[in-house]
Amino acid sequence: MKVHSLKQLYVQELKDVYDAENQIVKALPKLVKAASTDRLREALENHLEQTKGHVQRLEQIFEGLGEAAKGKKCDGLRGILDEGEKTIADGEKGSVLDAGLIAGAQRVEHYEMAAYGSLKTWAAQLGEDQAVQILQATLNEEKEADQKLTEIAASGVNAEASRARGASA
Amino acid sequence: MKVHSLKQLYVQELKDVYDAENQIVKALPKLVKAASTDRLREALENHLEQTKGHVQRLEQIFEGLGEAAKGKKCDGLRGILDEGEKTIADGEKGSVLDAGLIAGAQRVEHYEMAAYGSLKTWAAQLGEDQAVQILQATLNEEKEADQKLTEIAASGVNAEASRARGASA
Repeated sequence: MKVHSLKQLYVQELKDVYDAENQIVKALPKLVKAASTDRLREALENHLEQTKGHVQRLEQIFEGLGEAAKGKKCDGLRGILDEGEKTIADGEKGSVLDAGLIAGAQRVEHYEMAAYGSLKTWAAQLGEDQAVQILQATLNEEKEADQKLTEIAASGVNAEASRARGASA
Repeated sequence: MKVHSLKQLYVQELKDVYDAENQIVKALPKLVKAASTDRLREALENHLEQTKGHVQRLEQIFEGLGEAAKGKKCDGLRGILDEGEKTIADGEKGSVLDAGLIAGAQRVEHYEMAAYGSLKTWAAQLGEDQAVQILQATLNEEKEADQKLTEIAASGVNAEASRARGASA
């Protein structure tokens, strides 16, 4: 479909991120299952609940626009999740796999941060003030989730993976 | 290949981002060609030159590790670039397409920010101090490029796309 207006681009990108969020809802339980430390598992479980909320927020925006809440296959997020599945398949449960899971989850967070950042800018330019607030709320949660993962990576999980390298490098 | 140690994970992710950077070197000229405003074109051209430097920096890290500089197909970045190609195919040269190009380029920047962030953390934990500095230098440039694109999006380009919506919404 040809895109002629910012409004069309905005709706199309809403559909892209709606598909992305739904893919994430399906993928996160696999990451939770593969994680070893309680701290990482809790962070991922917490983000799964947040993600379900993000889906609902997008549905609220679609409703406000009079558009059906419908996803458009999101190739970017699909590729990132495919990488995550390979990480799980190639890993063994433990601190090294946890480090890989964090890296994969942070790619997911960053994809979303980029997407919600663009959407928020466009919503503002289209005068969709309520949507701006909704998108900002989700953007803040994505940034916080990313920050949390950085903290976990920098503290216990990766240090343990580093210590393990002597045994198996 | 099974990944047992943080060192293996680190090398594997270096190969992932090496492939990503090489994909970006090939893709950016298409974005430059599709862009309408000088400001966006210049930002993308500037980032193309930086990206060539990022490839060389990764080669330096591979050399320090005694590893061949070799990419490993990066599905995440591939998916993001596929989306960018669709944006170009579905768009018409002008301010709306520029807004879409910026959104695509920011997804690329964010993918890289996530990847270099993880690599830097692991390099530190592995005691690869020189690599930490090299990875930080690239990470800073990715963040600056993203910030630059946000400024362009928030200023002229998207506002123009918004004004154009009346004519074609």
